[in-house]
Amino acid sequence: MHVTLVHVHVKADHIDDFIAATRLNHQASIQEPGNRRFDVLQAPDDASRFILYEAYVDANAATAHKQTAHYLSWRNNVADWMAEPRQGVAYRGLFPQD
Amino acid sequence: MHVTLVHVHVKADHIDDFIAATRLNHQASIQEPGNRRFDVLQAPDDASRFILYEAYVDANAATAHKQTAHYLSWRNNVADWMAEPRQGVAYRGLFPQD
Repeated sequence: MHVTLVHVHVKADHIDDFIAATRLNHQASIQEPGNRRFDVLQAPDDASRFILYEAYVDANAATAHKQTAHYLSWRNNVADWMAEPRQGVAYRGLFPQD
Repeated sequence: MHVTLVHVHVKADHIDDFIAATRLNHQASIQEPGNRRFDVLQAPDDASRFILYEAYVDANAATAHKQTAHYLSWRNNVADWMAEPRQGVAYRGLFPQD
């Protein structure tokens, strides 16, 4: 698996907006054939901080995600709600192996 | 979901040992009824750094994991291979909701 942890810090007055938009992105992303996980995590001690845990079968599938209508719509919708730029960190998924 | 990201830094001469032991832990952990993910990730730019992405249906299931024979065996096996103490960071899993 090709995994990306996207660290997100949202403006405090747009947390609910961000969750609603990201729910739609989650629902569409898990339908992508190369997707394995699209988990949306919130820090328990700071509701403005999130991680998107995005796992794809390979780097090509991860790249294809960024060309989908739902990703592009999400990116546009959340742009003004970021408290700071998102940070994506890539990892090699060893297990599971599929 | 109750999610924990466990950040692991392994001694350079025990990377393969750690992967082999953690593979066994992965294989057993995903059989636990409350487990949703037990992904093992390796940093692409530093083979000695890993993340264990552990998702359970709730905090009780995560606690139960730490009482299993496979977890206790893993913990014992890897103890001398740590370059520094493991750091577990908990998150609230918003999506998926099951």
